[in-house]
Amino acid sequence: MKKVKIALLGLGNVGRGVWNILQMNGEEIMKRSGCQVEVAKILVRDPSKARAVKVPEELITTNFDEILNDDSIKIIVEVMGGIEPAREYILKSLNKKKHIVTANKMLLATYGDELFKKADEEEVMLNYEASVAGGIPIIQAINESLTANKIEKLYGIINGTTNFILSKMELEGSDFENVLKEAQEKGYAEADPTSDIEGFDAQYKLAILSSLAFGTKVKIDDVYREGITKITSKDIRYAKDFGLVIKLLAIAKETDGKLQLRVHPTMIPATHPLANVHDSFNAVFIKGNAVDDLMFYGRGAGDLPTGSAVVADIVSILRSDVDTENRLPVEKNNLWHKEIGEINDITSRYYIRTTVTDRPGVLGEITAIFGRHGVSLRSVIQRGRIKNEEEVGLVLVTHYTEEKQLQGAINEVKDIDAVKEINNMIRIEDFN
Amino acid sequence: MKKVKIALLGLGNVGRGVWNILQMNGEEIMKRSGCQVEVAKILVRDPSKARAVKVPEELITTNFDEILNDDSIKIIVEVMGGIEPAREYILKSLNKKKHIVTANKMLLATYGDELFKKADEEEVMLNYEASVAGGIPIIQAINESLTANKIEKLYGIINGTTNFILSKMELEGSDFENVLKEAQEKGYAEADPTSDIEGFDAQYKLAILSSLAFGTKVKIDDVYREGITKITSKDIRYAKDFGLVIKLLAIAKETDGKLQLRVHPTMIPATHPLANVHDSFNAVFIKGNAVDDLMFYGRGAGDLPTGSAVVADIVSILRSDVDTENRLPVEKNNLWHKEIGEINDITSRYYIRTTVTDRPGVLGEITAIFGRHGVSLRSVIQRGRIKNEEEVGLVLVTHYTEEKQLQGAINEVKDIDAVKEINNMIRIEDFN
Repeated sequence: MKKVKIALLGLGNVGRGVWNILQMNGEEIMKRSGCQVEVAKILVRDPSKARAVKVPEELITTNFDEILNDDSIKIIVEVMGGIEPAREYILKSLNKKKHIVTANKMLLATYGDELFKKADEEEVMLNYEASVAGGIPIIQAINESLTANKIEKLYGIINGTTNFILSKMELEGSDFENVLKEAQEKGYAEADPTSDIEGFDAQYKLAILSSLAFGTKVKIDDVYREGITKITSKDIRYAKDFGLVIKLLAIAKETDGKLQLRVHPTMIPATHPLANVHDSFNAVFIKGNAVDDLMFYGRGAGDLPTGSAVVADIVSILRSDVDTENRLPVEKNNLWHKEIGEINDITSRYYIRTTVTDRPGVLGEITAIFGRHGVSLRSVIQRGRIKNEEEVGLVLVTHYTEEKQLQGAINEVKDIDAVKEINNMIRIEDFN
Repeated sequence: MKKVKIALLGLGNVGRGVWNILQMNGEEIMKRSGCQVEVAKILVRDPSKARAVKVPEELITTNFDEILNDDSIKIIVEVMGGIEPAREYILKSLNKKKHIVTANKMLLATYGDELFKKADEEEVMLNYEASVAGGIPIIQAINESLTANKIEKLYGIINGTTNFILSKMELEGSDFENVLKEAQEKGYAEADPTSDIEGFDAQYKLAILSSLAFGTKVKIDDVYREGITKITSKDIRYAKDFGLVIKLLAIAKETDGKLQLRVHPTMIPATHPLANVHDSFNAVFIKGNAVDDLMFYGRGAGDLPTGSAVVADIVSILRSDVDTENRLPVEKNNLWHKEIGEINDITSRYYIRTTVTDRPGVLGEITAIFGRHGVSLRSVIQRGRIKNEEEVGLVLVTHYTEEKQLQGAINEVKDIDAVKEINNMIRIEDFN
């Protein structure tokens, strides 16, 4: 049995998962890869740090060069996260013709092009299944299983933290702030939750997924982004009245020759498979022109699920014979150049929640403005006022309309005296 | 650009899908595979038959030897179905070192071992993604993406016809016979629906899936099988009362060192992701010891979805360079030998629907028998009798119990005078 030495860069959550899987499923991995995997070195910043995993002390190092200059180490598993020094370490390792497995979405979304090009030049593999949607093998599916398809649409619930929060809000009627606090206590949300709740994490992941699915270069800023901080329990209740639920949806679709890329809270039909993705689960829904609808569902985070994807990437390198330098047989990225659309150019249905003074004629004024902007309304809900309150909630749902027309209408409505606030505007996706 | 010649054996539903995908997505496939695919020959039984697809006449042949002896044809795509002559053609093609792509579940479930062994000896590829769950890339997922896992449980809705029928019955309250007729009219069920409704189709597929997932040899007869013909709208209504829905579930799990393999109507919680798989959609739910819960959802049949899987298999051969003889790097089948359990040895919860004469003491007699057999009851529902009917429905739901104890109790209950009929016994799966 051939022994293959690997090194881990990082021993956090994912690194621990990788270590534990290699221990607990060693026999499976050996039989399936034909090789025995040996972790030869583990790079950490602070060896004295208390960790939830026990590894032999002699494996730990703080000196990357020890790993880089060890020619017996064939595979580098980068699970440290962040841009630098991860990027530097990967580039140097590629230069030494070491294969790379990485779970680093931020790095790939930012410098993916540079890294893939370098791996290609050095004729080594760079695998990154764990960078999107944790344990769900979505990269493999797009790269290997959907090659017969033109992918037309891709929708993803690819951030577990926000899905946990929105599911809880839906289930319990609680408000955003309370649920966020609970998520932080349970470890589902970080102390600084910005990256999740403002949609940055999903933005990185959609950049990676869409560049693969549509075979084109996608930069992070090509993806329009809105977080979930403005969603209230009121919006969730109204959504329910319309048979809809609110998800932080990552959307990529080609319309009129342009690629629409966006991450924002989205109302979707309660009967759609994505609406039934609860808690911290992730799911990616794809429509291909041959395969039609497909959905992949699973754990988008966690040490073992993410480790499962990392170790599968290691096995795939082992199977392709780590001793011969392996070239990716064909280029999988940037097959086409696709133009990226602007958020203002999309066509959607919209939900708008406003607070207005309850006096005669307000509704007429508002609907007249929407009409002038060419926005046709499908439903209007005005709840009767409570006791002596002067202000009432007014919710509008539009038919399909262009975003720029809608924004024009909202801007004008905002200036009506009786309109106290535009509380929220949420796009509705009906998957047509 | 390298041209690679392939031949289709069969031009039915799936063959048509393959042909159409190669035409409509030719550019995608070329860019992704690095090769141009040319269909050089198509084997049909009756060239005069009217077909829903137009192919150049000169490609059609009724003589397999024309294909076999054409050394320029590198890949054989077997989409004719059935055991013979498909088996003979594949073996002869392997002998000539042609790569194989097949969608033939019945053949693989029956002679898979022989075919894989032969492919291995000849050092060519034998791909079969389309044999299970149509367009869903479940074979690839198990073979390539879940290599870091010990798969503990696998549950599948892998027959679209029965799922269509059960979904309709659930949605509309209609009876089996009516819905079957509708399914036949719509083309979702065949004129002779036996293979679907009696669970044979799912049995073949589970044999293939479970042998991969558990790395052991599974014969068709190792899979216990029951069809859905006994399910009535009454059972579906009772299930609903308990918060359950009825699916034809394929189940494979390891308990006490034995593999449980079974296909039967199963009541599952309405909140489980599999319960939301409606119409003719398929889904496979897997629990791995690292990745935890995963579900793959999509179209289990249809010309284009199934063709999508076939063409992806072709691309995978092209990518691994069709000119050099490719050996599977490691054995993926039969890594372990697992003992197969008997249906009598399983432990489950059960739903039993009976019809009894409404006289005092019957319920007591029945529950006493269950008690004597060690079967503990969780719920009993006896609906009040309607008008002057003497017979009433009595439904029992058990706690976890061994199947043999349950069968013992049922056999004794059957003999009570007041028990007119044991209408149905359905296993309940709660995924624990």
